[in-house]
Amino acid sequence: MGGVVSDDILLARAYLSRVAEPACIPVWDCVRCLGPVAAARLIRDGAGSPEVSAATAARREHADPQADLDVAQRHGIRLVVPESDEWPHFALAALERTGRARARTFQAGERKVSDSGEPMPPLALWVKGPGELAALGVRSVGIVGSRAATAYGEHVTADLGYGLAGRGVVVVSGGAYGIDAAAHRGALAAGGQTVVVSAGGLDRPYPTGNAALFTRAAESGLVISESPPGAAPQRHRFLTRNRLIAALSTGTVVVEAARRSGAANTAHHCLTLGRPVMAVPGPVTSPMSAGCHDLLRRENDPALLVTCVDDVVAVVGAMGDGIAADQRPPADPIAGDVRAELDVLDPVARRVFEGLPVRRPARPDEIAQRCGVTPLEVIRSLPVLDLAGLLEASDAGYRIAARLRPRRRRV
Amino acid sequence: MGGVVSDDILLARAYLSRVAEPACIPVWDCVRCLGPVAAARLIRDGAGSPEVSAATAARREHADPQADLDVAQRHGIRLVVPESDEWPHFALAALERTGRARARTFQAGERKVSDSGEPMPPLALWVKGPGELAALGVRSVGIVGSRAATAYGEHVTADLGYGLAGRGVVVVSGGAYGIDAAAHRGALAAGGQTVVVSAGGLDRPYPTGNAALFTRAAESGLVISESPPGAAPQRHRFLTRNRLIAALSTGTVVVEAARRSGAANTAHHCLTLGRPVMAVPGPVTSPMSAGCHDLLRRENDPALLVTCVDDVVAVVGAMGDGIAADQRPPADPIAGDVRAELDVLDPVARRVFEGLPVRRPARPDEIAQRCGVTPLEVIRSLPVLDLAGLLEASDAGYRIAARLRPRRRRV
Repeated sequence: MGGVVSDDILLARAYLSRVAEPACIPVWDCVRCLGPVAAARLIRDGAGSPEVSAATAARREHADPQADLDVAQRHGIRLVVPESDEWPHFALAALERTGRARARTFQAGERKVSDSGEPMPPLALWVKGPGELAALGVRSVGIVGSRAATAYGEHVTADLGYGLAGRGVVVVSGGAYGIDAAAHRGALAAGGQTVVVSAGGLDRPYPTGNAALFTRAAESGLVISESPPGAAPQRHRFLTRNRLIAALSTGTVVVEAARRSGAANTAHHCLTLGRPVMAVPGPVTSPMSAGCHDLLRRENDPALLVTCVDDVVAVVGAMGDGIAADQRPPADPIAGDVRAELDVLDPVARRVFEGLPVRRPARPDEIAQRCGVTPLEVIRSLPVLDLAGLLEASDAGYRIAARLRPRRRRV
Repeated sequence: MGGVVSDDILLARAYLSRVAEPACIPVWDCVRCLGPVAAARLIRDGAGSPEVSAATAARREHADPQADLDVAQRHGIRLVVPESDEWPHFALAALERTGRARARTFQAGERKVSDSGEPMPPLALWVKGPGELAALGVRSVGIVGSRAATAYGEHVTADLGYGLAGRGVVVVSGGAYGIDAAAHRGALAAGGQTVVVSAGGLDRPYPTGNAALFTRAAESGLVISESPPGAAPQRHRFLTRNRLIAALSTGTVVVEAARRSGAANTAHHCLTLGRPVMAVPGPVTSPMSAGCHDLLRRENDPALLVTCVDDVVAVVGAMGDGIAADQRPPADPIAGDVRAELDVLDPVARRVFEGLPVRRPARPDEIAQRCGVTPLEVIRSLPVLDLAGLLEASDAGYRIAARLRPRRRRV
């Protein structure tokens, strides 16, 4: 990891993003095993596994990543890769986990591809705008719903977007008419950050009627796509796009949705990732609220009923709450043989580890205050510490892994 | 029990209904211990406990039950008492239980009177109309909500009332403008039975604007009050009235309610009595739906979200469902020493007992089919069997008490 990503990694990831459809299990797994540069070379040479070859056959010989990067640059679009500091490691850690699990079942013979999109992390993200991509997931709320929204739905959505942005919460949504557009408009009206997650290439705003909205979002926030410039917003790309909205949001609100809808698909991804799903009720006479009511009363994991900004903030949590209660630095609980594990960490991750509470889980900004690094540095380091088995994550936050905690002594 | 109630009981209960406010713990308990005739005499003589005397001081010397019964008769109102076959024993059994529990805590020193009304059964009911009072609670749905209902709320309510009545479900509500009136109108439009539970005397329709509606309800269904003719609909009488709506309904739907409302009070009574509370969601922009949303998301016993007649019927159950599955007569499980207990039962109750399933609980009409008596006879006998400890009641229906069930033999 470092500030500057080498050109060969950028080119390799641009190539992979072009030749593989989003959330392709075999290609993602190949990249995970070989790294992007070797994986790209293997694929271009047609030397991958049968699944990898099949998944990339259509474009692997003709893809021109340098041309894609040039087109992107002309449109003010940059390619963000997992090797970059800007990568949203924190938000995508859950996709990383579910992706690994899915890859295992795929290798074990579960070849059937999920209709609702596989829970894999993206290979790269095409990004436009000054927003802080790496900070997503800490205090960001997905607002999703029907394109054919009613006046009621658009009103409630714009209110939510406005109110959340006014409290410093980043709004995340798709780029469609209806609920998506109302959410962004509300956030922008409050001068807040909004994130448009697009299903097609960012040089081709879709629908074109929302082009001006995307431009405004990219001026203060972010417009993001998993697909390279020129990619058409095809149906399956909407389904895989939905998992990104779920992953990049601390929690997601469904404002209006028909019985079978993309919003229900996004809600499904939230559950897979362990992110809270909220739903706004509406008139029972409105088919556009029927999907929300279904979510609210399903037997397993019913959605949380929210009626206003306060309700949503109560669910996603107010960062920094409760920090006063536990400000003592933790006692050093680290046994001698653990020190070796810590030695491989970079100095920032080491400091973040030292800021992890022993008992009561803390949120990233609490940890930042405890160890004196920036919240962004904390959320960059948490996935590293997680993969190293040094921390324990829960809905309430992060703390030192159980194996490292000193036994409680009875006085 | 018998078909004809003696005049002295009728006069005593008419007197008690005049001198005590509804749900008065000391008076109810006094009647329970002494019977109505002796209790009425004691009260008229000023010889009751200090609490009984205090609760009846205002009217005990001037009450004229014969005059009340005469006025009632002129208005087509009859007095129904617990000693009558028409008494809704089945629906009020839960109030009987909660009333006994409340009387015990009262005697133990818990003198504070509940703000939301005590869960005591009525001493008597003033009733008008041909509806089947005794059958209430088996397949009846309370529909309650705000007087200041919106057009949306009234529309949904009338739809529910119409649809439920069309399926033979009796609608129960108060007599107010708004949701109450819309519920009755819907049921009447479908040619169904509707029950108006009034907070004041039935000779004084309140509000007078609904007088014609009460007249129509009394033509095919019922108009009921706990208070004698001439009683004004005072605030505390609305709160005690609400417990009757809850008790007389298999389940209750709140269609529209502000944050603090009578509907929330009715919902509270439902929970106390173990009756399901349903709520209809609405626009989050409508203060008239805020109470419903609160009910839907409260932590303990959240209301069930219903959007249509089907949803409500699914909650209160379709009588007769599943009867085909278990039509064999139960094996005779009765040990010799239990026969003595059964000998004290009247012949109908004895037959009903014999119709109780051993394992899978059955609903009253299933039991009726099993033992060849009418459903009404079944529901009259169930409280008797319950008090005798011969049956076990649950949400799913009734079966023989555990102590009487033969052990399952392993083959």
